[in-house]
Amino acid sequence: MAREIPTEAQVLSWYTALSNWGRWGPDDELGTLNLITPGKRRQAAGLVREGVVVSCARTIAYDPTPDGPVAPQHFMLRSGEGEATETLGRTNARDAFLIAPHGQTITHLDAPSHTFVRADASAPWTMYNGRPRDLVRTMDGATAGSIELVGEGIVSRGVLLDVARLRGVSWLETGDPVFPEDLDAAEAAQGVRVEPGDILFVRTGFPKHRAEQGPRPPAEGVASLQAACLPWLRERDVALLGSDTSNDVSPTEYPSLGINGAIHGVGMGAIGLWLLDNPTFESLAAACAERGRWEFLATIAPLKLEHGTGSPVNPLAML
Amino acid sequence: MAREIPTEAQVLSWYTALSNWGRWGPDDELGTLNLITPGKRRQAAGLVREGVVVSCARTIAYDPTPDGPVAPQHFMLRSGEGEATETLGRTNARDAFLIAPHGQTITHLDAPSHTFVRADASAPWTMYNGRPRDLVRTMDGATAGSIELVGEGIVSRGVLLDVARLRGVSWLETGDPVFPEDLDAAEAAQGVRVEPGDILFVRTGFPKHRAEQGPRPPAEGVASLQAACLPWLRERDVALLGSDTSNDVSPTEYPSLGINGAIHGVGMGAIGLWLLDNPTFESLAAACAERGRWEFLATIAPLKLEHGTGSPVNPLAML
Amino acid sequence: MAREIPTEAQVLSWYTALSNWGRWGPDDELGTLNLITPGKRRQAAGLVREGVVVSCARTIAYDPTPDGPVAPQHFMLRSGEGEATETLGRTNARDAFLIAPHGQTITHLDAPSHTFVRADASAPWTMYNGRPRDLVRTMDGATAGSIELVGEGIVSRGVLLDVARLRGVSWLETGDPVFPEDLDAAEAAQGVRVEPGDILFVRTGFPKHRAEQGPRPPAEGVASLQAACLPWLRERDVALLGSDTSNDVSPTEYPSLGINGAIHGVGMGAIGLWLLDNPTFESLAAACAERGRWEFLATIAPLKLEHGTGSPVNPLAML
Amino acid sequence: MAREIPTEAQVLSWYTALSNWGRWGPDDELGTLNLITPGKRRQAAGLVREGVVVSCARTIAYDPTPDGPVAPQHFMLRSGEGEATETLGRTNARDAFLIAPHGQTITHLDAPSHTFVRADASAPWTMYNGRPRDLVRTMDGATAGSIELVGEGIVSRGVLLDVARLRGVSWLETGDPVFPEDLDAAEAAQGVRVEPGDILFVRTGFPKHRAEQGPRPPAEGVASLQAACLPWLRERDVALLGSDTSNDVSPTEYPSLGINGAIHGVGMGAIGLWLLDNPTFESLAAACAERGRWEFLATIAPLKLEHGTGSPVNPLAML
Repeated sequence: MAREIPTEAQVLSWYTALSNWGRWGPDDELGTLNLITPGKRRQAAGLVREGVVVSCARTIAYDPTPDGPVAPQHFMLRSGEGEATETLGRTNARDAFLIAPHGQTITHLDAPSHTFVRADASAPWTMYNGRPRDLVRTMDGATAGSIELVGEGIVSRGVLLDVARLRGVSWLETGDPVFPEDLDAAEAAQGVRVEPGDILFVRTGFPKHRAEQGPRPPAEGVASLQAACLPWLRERDVALLGSDTSNDVSPTEYPSLGINGAIHGVGMGAIGLWLLDNPTFESLAAACAERGRWEFLATIAPLKLEHGTGSPVNPLAML
Repeated sequence: MAREIPTEAQVLSWYTALSNWGRWGPDDELGTLNLITPGKRRQAAGLVREGVVVSCARTIAYDPTPDGPVAPQHFMLRSGEGEATETLGRTNARDAFLIAPHGQTITHLDAPSHTFVRADASAPWTMYNGRPRDLVRTMDGATAGSIELVGEGIVSRGVLLDVARLRGVSWLETGDPVFPEDLDAAEAAQGVRVEPGDILFVRTGFPKHRAEQGPRPPAEGVASLQAACLPWLRERDVALLGSDTSNDVSPTEYPSLGINGAIHGVGMGAIGLWLLDNPTFESLAAACAERGRWEFLATIAPLKLEHGTGSPVNPLAML
Repeated sequence: MAREIPTEAQVLSWYTALSNWGRWGPDDELGTLNLITPGKRRQAAGLVREGVVVSCARTIAYDPTPDGPVAPQHFMLRSGEGEATETLGRTNARDAFLIAPHGQTITHLDAPSHTFVRADASAPWTMYNGRPRDLVRTMDGATAGSIELVGEGIVSRGVLLDVARLRGVSWLETGDPVFPEDLDAAEAAQGVRVEPGDILFVRTGFPKHRAEQGPRPPAEGVASLQAACLPWLRERDVALLGSDTSNDVSPTEYPSLGINGAIHGVGMGAIGLWLLDNPTFESLAAACAERGRWEFLATIAPLKLEHGTGSPVNPLAML
Repeated sequence: MAREIPTEAQVLSWYTALSNWGRWGPDDELGTLNLITPGKRRQAAGLVREGVVVSCARTIAYDPTPDGPVAPQHFMLRSGEGEATETLGRTNARDAFLIAPHGQTITHLDAPSHTFVRADASAPWTMYNGRPRDLVRTMDGATAGSIELVGEGIVSRGVLLDVARLRGVSWLETGDPVFPEDLDAAEAAQGVRVEPGDILFVRTGFPKHRAEQGPRPPAEGVASLQAACLPWLRERDVALLGSDTSNDVSPTEYPSLGINGAIHGVGMGAIGLWLLDNPTFESLAAACAERGRWEFLATIAPLKLEHGTGSPVNPLAML
């Protein structure tokens, strides 16, 4: 399915052409989340018909994988083995977790401080809306653009565009990513339209691939949203994008534009778009298909991790 | 305000008298969450009027405190300082967190595997509904009663009973805890009634005390729900209880009943009641008081931490 | 090189036949380290001729490997990038490490609390000299048999028996382990004799294999000391054994005797022998061969890790 | 005991006047460790008379203290509680540790990458001998000046100067630090002389204070080596300095010279002097006093922590 792949120059031009810098004032850090109004949330709550809740998070497991260097760790601080210190009433167990949210196995929300961009090699690296990169420091963490920005939670109308279903496959193969034509076609096929302030979920089916065939080496890559989707996302004023991969195509077609340079770069850096990485939509897709309804109340509740560049999350869809 | 404090024998008797063991079958692990039906969730979604969202989570900060031995840690894996490896497009920052969810500064949900009970020193320690304590193992974690049980999220009608407001104080002092009479009086004063399947939030104002006067040494204790509230919670069929402390009075009036032996012991172990520890209701209380309305759509989305005994959460209330 | 492989029954019988329980009193925890006397240490210091020091530790690196589930982690708490807070004089960088000493890439010393044994399925599991297994607790760590036992350091005469050199190979292949005949032959070839209280290093060359061919999956195994060496080790009254693998043959010939059931089980549990796992002798072997001298002053300085079951170490040989 | 406290300008001038930059070539990273020759090590081995070994490390415990933000953590990965998976032979326990070596409770060796200096606000910050500060990066750690430099271990003649004994006190009080006159007087009283290439231990008795009176808040400070000792250390060509504090006086007399700006700054940065922080000499002082002999074989064996800025160590003295 060969669609038109934008050139590197085109992608670079979008840093300016699609920019939302200044749109919500010079000090804004919320970017596209400004599009979620109380009215939008009321509308979203009105989408709940059956009272069914579906999680879009993957399980956080502890096996070392080729997915990334800091695998999650689980430490029991007290277990249920052996004699309890107490004799009657209650005793307990407890644990600790080491989690690097941006790991490729973890469903997480990126904070603005996760992404720095520049379209000109002589310009400084900055976050969305021009905040300097060096506000994110080793000692202090993200002193700007922290995940705390969304500590009050993100709630809006959610829409699932199921591209794997559209194409009649279990999952998109590497090298065969999502183009804006797919988004349009999925809208048409599903009878739904993405509107300003929506939380957009795009299903490639990758988690199913991973579950059936094991984690694949990073070099093998994943299909995801091709950079060509960027103008579409900007035009539709999507508030938050979550694809069931890391959102960007891998390996990238734009190696000189840095790590995940297209969707993460132009999306987070220029558009101020919030990204949900590594969710899973296998259950949600089934729930939606069963009802022939692809819109729902979506809630994402990041942890208030002080000075954090992201948070593991469990996004919920309520139908 | 001296109310009647139950004797230790009374509290012990409640392990049987208030038990929900078997109520939802011999294999049930969900306990009081069985009371949240799709209809209940539909009703909850209908409570959203203004589309306002309020978080009930505290910030996860990294200062060592007297609150507990494993303080949260924040490690930057890559920061925004120094030269970026990339030259154009995008570069990034990322981090890792060490979190012990049951720490006394962290808003978290307890899994059934966190609590083992027995009312008879010759009986085995078990979780709610009789699962053996030794299913929670140092090597494997919680092989039963894991927080994964609620991986699909918890959504229901939420009710805030603001006891600090009822008493006209900023916070309840240690030694002056919440009694069932307070719950009744708060209902009457607020014009609201706690119903089966509700998520009940009880405000003592402790986070305000902590913010203004700093963390107090554990020995100083906190006011919270006195054990006398247990029959009330069982009778009302509350699905989930969250008080803005660790739910149990500290120091305990029942030292021989183990750690947090009353609300945690009888509540989690016998009633199968889910507990949210260490939330904050300062913002929510203001939002409710302003509207004269103390019911809302409540969502709690625990991380799917494999074999975990709990999860940090960011509970959201939607009004 | 087919040597006689002891039967499982023979290995089991050695739990009694080779036992040192009680030899240094009923409360002894030091086991074979009792054989290192001040006179022995004086003798060892006398072996220093050139004043050359050689390390026998491997580098602790942070790449995830198939060697084990908890890979070491390195976190920079403050780096040298970006602007320093200070303007003149001095600024600094600092870091933190997560280390699981018993990982298969880490040169470490096992504490008695690392190994529990029983030769009879009806007997309790105990450490060397009968200390109960449940003294090593999840909450408290090793309340007996801790690595703190050797907090004062281990210094003695060291002897290297270079079995790879003896056989004229770069490394021993899996399935071709070290037998007591090899130890005798190496002594004869090298003109050295292992004496009571010695620190014995046995070279298989495995680190060279690992360096050249990458970490091999655990299933592929390593050659090491076959169980048949146990009577030899006991007879010679070796104080501490370090082979440049995990000391035990993998995969084990005695699957029903537990993890590393032979050298670790009979050695640590019955003999009270201290084991150094995963050192490297590539440099030391070259230094010894060059001089035609295989004895030296050996020092091992475990960290005083409170209640620890082992410690990463950097063993030094001084020639 | 008011001695002459150097002015800030004097301390700054020592960055040049006492510098060893270039002394061992433009690429040297070993600094004063170049002074330890094989002959020096042979001499050191000759100091062993009784074959007695004394550790100079403090215990690494896990209590949160006011000493620093990252307290050591101990996680049991498998304990000795509950049923063993194995039935016969051997089972085991194991653990993991989180350690920030530069913590004020941990006996550790500083690597050159721990310290960056400049005596002129327009100059770049560099390590000893001019290596740029930005070689120590958040992602990669210390790509120069790593603790791996001393992976082969440090062995030399050790000398203890017991200033607390000299003054007849259990410990030096804050505000009453060590001056070069004390070092001279201790030499005279003890009948020993510090020579080039020596490992110099200076006892203030602080660990005794800490053991008896608990950890003191950082603001209370510690006595240690006053900056005035710097010319003495340079003149004597000390190879490694360890005082039983963090080596620098706290609170500093030179607040504008950065963290630990005198001994750490001029010492590590200009002289290339290696520093051992937070050892304890309580046992060693007793052993030396008993024998009337204050020289010994000293060994320090840092872990080969890849790209590390320091390592916890257990320094051993052999008499």
